[in-house]
Amino acid sequence: MKIDPAAATSRVGVRVRFGETDLMGIVHHASYVSYLEVARIEWLRRRGVAYAQWAASGRHLPVVEMSIKYRAPCRFDDELVVRATLGEIRAASVRFDYVVYRGDVLCAEAATRLACIDGEGTLRRITEDMSAVLLRPEG
Amino acid sequence: MKIDPAAATSRVGVRVRFGETDLMGIVHHASYVSYLEVARIEWLRRRGVAYAQWAASGRHLPVVEMSIKYRAPCRFDDELVVRATLGEIRAASVRFDYVVYRGDVLCAEAATRLACIDGEGTLRRITEDMSAVLLRPEG
Amino acid sequence: MKIDPAAATSRVGVRVRFGETDLMGIVHHASYVSYLEVARIEWLRRRGVAYAQWAASGRHLPVVEMSIKYRAPCRFDDELVVRATLGEIRAASVRFDYVVYRGDVLCAEAATRLACIDGEGTLRRITEDMSAVLLRPEG
Amino acid sequence: MKIDPAAATSRVGVRVRFGETDLMGIVHHASYVSYLEVARIEWLRRRGVAYAQWAASGRHLPVVEMSIKYRAPCRFDDELVVRATLGEIRAASVRFDYVVYRGDVLCAEAATRLACIDGEGTLRRITEDMSAVLLRPEG
Repeated sequence: MKIDPAAATSRVGVRVRFGETDLMGIVHHASYVSYLEVARIEWLRRRGVAYAQWAASGRHLPVVEMSIKYRAPCRFDDELVVRATLGEIRAASVRFDYVVYRGDVLCAEAATRLACIDGEGTLRRITEDMSAVLLRPEG
Repeated sequence: MKIDPAAATSRVGVRVRFGETDLMGIVHHASYVSYLEVARIEWLRRRGVAYAQWAASGRHLPVVEMSIKYRAPCRFDDELVVRATLGEIRAASVRFDYVVYRGDVLCAEAATRLACIDGEGTLRRITEDMSAVLLRPEG
Repeated sequence: MKIDPAAATSRVGVRVRFGETDLMGIVHHASYVSYLEVARIEWLRRRGVAYAQWAASGRHLPVVEMSIKYRAPCRFDDELVVRATLGEIRAASVRFDYVVYRGDVLCAEAATRLACIDGEGTLRRITEDMSAVLLRPEG
Repeated sequence: MKIDPAAATSRVGVRVRFGETDLMGIVHHASYVSYLEVARIEWLRRRGVAYAQWAASGRHLPVVEMSIKYRAPCRFDDELVVRATLGEIRAASVRFDYVVYRGDVLCAEAATRLACIDGEGTLRRITEDMSAVLLRPEG
């Protein structure tokens, strides 16, 4: 499916919490997983999707693949921007790509593949109405 | 209900994970909540209760009150011992008391009250068979 | 020290993240510890304090006591408001009181005592300039 | 540097904590990051390295790249085994590969690259004594 990168991109702000740091004095690498998730949920919300409702109705998009490259350390209270882009829609999964910035500094690059499953964990096709939603620009 | 403190006590080891520290170089205060939970689950297991099965069958013991006093800092890789004691059984809730040690050093004292609820979140009485289990010594 | 409750109160919004829930389908009780921390840092920021700078300069306010009463469950994506109030200033510690709301629903009540320590972990008096800051209304 | 895969492999047990699950009733994908970290620290310990001491002395191995493929869901209280293997030693970084099992079930595959840095965050060569340690079989 053809994706327009501009329409498929949202920028979401996240501020680093104290408890997300570790003894090195920087943000622990697991904390970024949470930032990507926050950005993805917000990406959907800006296209009219309340993911909480999808989840409550038994439609889930669990992460099945994730990769992160850490480029520069982040610190407590940093105001980060996660630029999230829908990168690919397949039959039963989608891929999001992310870049995490602090001002002009590139802090991390990441990608996640999300499978589409139902409440029993069975893989489901991405329906046409889901695709239509995913191809919307942010509102 | 009469509780025998000796029978009602278990000692559970927990090793501090790297990601549980914060930029002060010590264990973040929220991490202890996890240690108490680990100790409580293990306390039940040693009395024959697989809490995962209770949860899967819709019987839950969520924390409804929690208090922690932090006495001495803990650090990455510390081997802690959580001494957990069933302190009280009420009609629809129980209280556990905890002391967290690192060797002889008292690191934290805590208590949690857990309500007994079903899968719909409705408060349920502690049944006689639950009480019987809770009053067992560890096996 | 005399505290004006109105001046000493701030309301801080927090949205529940997916990863903060547990298998009961509600927010895990440990997640609230993070919400209180976020509210406290923001409380300070609105009074001109960048806690990250305090921490970087070796002035810390670690939590030494914490208590939480859970009143109603919160769920993924809920928009919570944490009402944080400075409750007491002592020689070397302060207490904050919190109420967590979702709309009109009272979800949790909490309190934390924070000690004032330096980079070596030694207890320090709350200085007059710290008190002055803490007694400011939000800006 | 030539690595003997048998000598370079350790199996580390991890039990899933309640708070590591999410509202889907399974282990949240971020929790695996913690399991990999636990396995890596234990891998080092079995070769005589107390990573806490390295960290305290200003020698760090932060994660600079991470990838995880989630193969089968894990649940609360599952006893997982993380099989961790040193996969590569470069001039200033190392790579670990991981497979997470629950019994015979493959749950996840992962890899992390760790840079070698000092207390100021400057990249450092893997010294010969570090290499010697990393090439030891578990003791």
